[in-house]
Amino acid sequence: MNARIITISREFGSGGRSVAKLLAQKLGVAYYDKELVKQIALESGFDAQYIEEHGEQAPAASALAYAFNVPGTPGIMRGMSATDFLWCIQREVVQKIAEKEPCVIVGRSADYILRERKDCLHVFIHADMAFRAERIVRLYGQSEKSPEQRLRDKDKKRAVNYKHFTGQTWGMSQNYHLSLDSGAIGIERCADLIAELAKG
Amino acid sequence: MNARIITISREFGSGGRSVAKLLAQKLGVAYYDKELVKQIALESGFDAQYIEEHGEQAPAASALAYAFNVPGTPGIMRGMSATDFLWCIQREVVQKIAEKEPCVIVGRSADYILRERKDCLHVFIHADMAFRAERIVRLYGQSEKSPEQRLRDKDKKRAVNYKHFTGQTWGMSQNYHLSLDSGAIGIERCADLIAELAKG
Repeated sequence: MNARIITISREFGSGGRSVAKLLAQKLGVAYYDKELVKQIALESGFDAQYIEEHGEQAPAASALAYAFNVPGTPGIMRGMSATDFLWCIQREVVQKIAEKEPCVIVGRSADYILRERKDCLHVFIHADMAFRAERIVRLYGQSEKSPEQRLRDKDKKRAVNYKHFTGQTWGMSQNYHLSLDSGAIGIERCADLIAELAKG
Repeated sequence: MNARIITISREFGSGGRSVAKLLAQKLGVAYYDKELVKQIALESGFDAQYIEEHGEQAPAASALAYAFNVPGTPGIMRGMSATDFLWCIQREVVQKIAEKEPCVIVGRSADYILRERKDCLHVFIHADMAFRAERIVRLYGQSEKSPEQRLRDKDKKRAVNYKHFTGQTWGMSQNYHLSLDSGAIGIERCADLIAELAKG
């Protein structure tokens, strides 16, 4: 396929971020995840933590959670909800990055934002509940909620955000060129498969 | 993954059947598509054409289209709709085939029927409307309906059937280990990727 840009959408806990990191190393290209959040923060005036928490979540909750006027943001934001404004900035930043250099981009509905480009490979990484539950407890520790409930909550928020801004159903095969079950296939093997396909 | 059985679910016109045929050749294993329909016909008393037309379609339409008593069918069918009965036979035949030999199975919700087995690789093949429309006109000719309408109708019928019998959404990445866009990736390449993964 000879893809210049690879977008990795992922279920929480599936290891999609690890796949993306490995993939960027294998291909020797830039990796945008936290760096993307930083750039969105810089251009929006929101702080990075707010973007991490709300940029991929349900619009209603986060629109209520934040007021319209953030010091230093331009007038264009007035009349927009915080989430809508964040989406616009996110879209611009993702488009700029795609113009700038070959890279791997994690999350942020980049598959949808870059859907018209012909030089992208769009990938979705998922895994079953048991694999993801074990992984989030190992990586992020226990919390009051069961790991299964944390996974369901996060999946639901991402799905609602994606539906709101793209009109599409999050996780449908048809949105991506390639979808992989990282639990069954393995994280390293997923990265190998994507790299092979991206190289043409 | 070292998969003994590979199930190929596919959008109409995506070339999923061609991928499956090539794959079976590459792996040197049995290929079940028409052969599966023949066995379902043999065990159900329905004729093969009826099964081809109704076995993956919307339950309401086909239940109305057929009466309950088909000559030669066992008493167990009484009280079941024709589609429910067909589903039961289909499930049994798919399970028997999976027990019998390593193989590639096309369609028939085999991903769901065999979901508990650990020796399966479940694959979904899809492609965009333009690729599929060109393909069905080339392979099956024009009809009164536009190719896009034919695709939408068939997709919808398969989705309704799948939902009815499995409770799942047809085409969701999470139902499969691997989903591939055959239009973007190419039919031969899809077969290569699946073969590689199935070999372990």
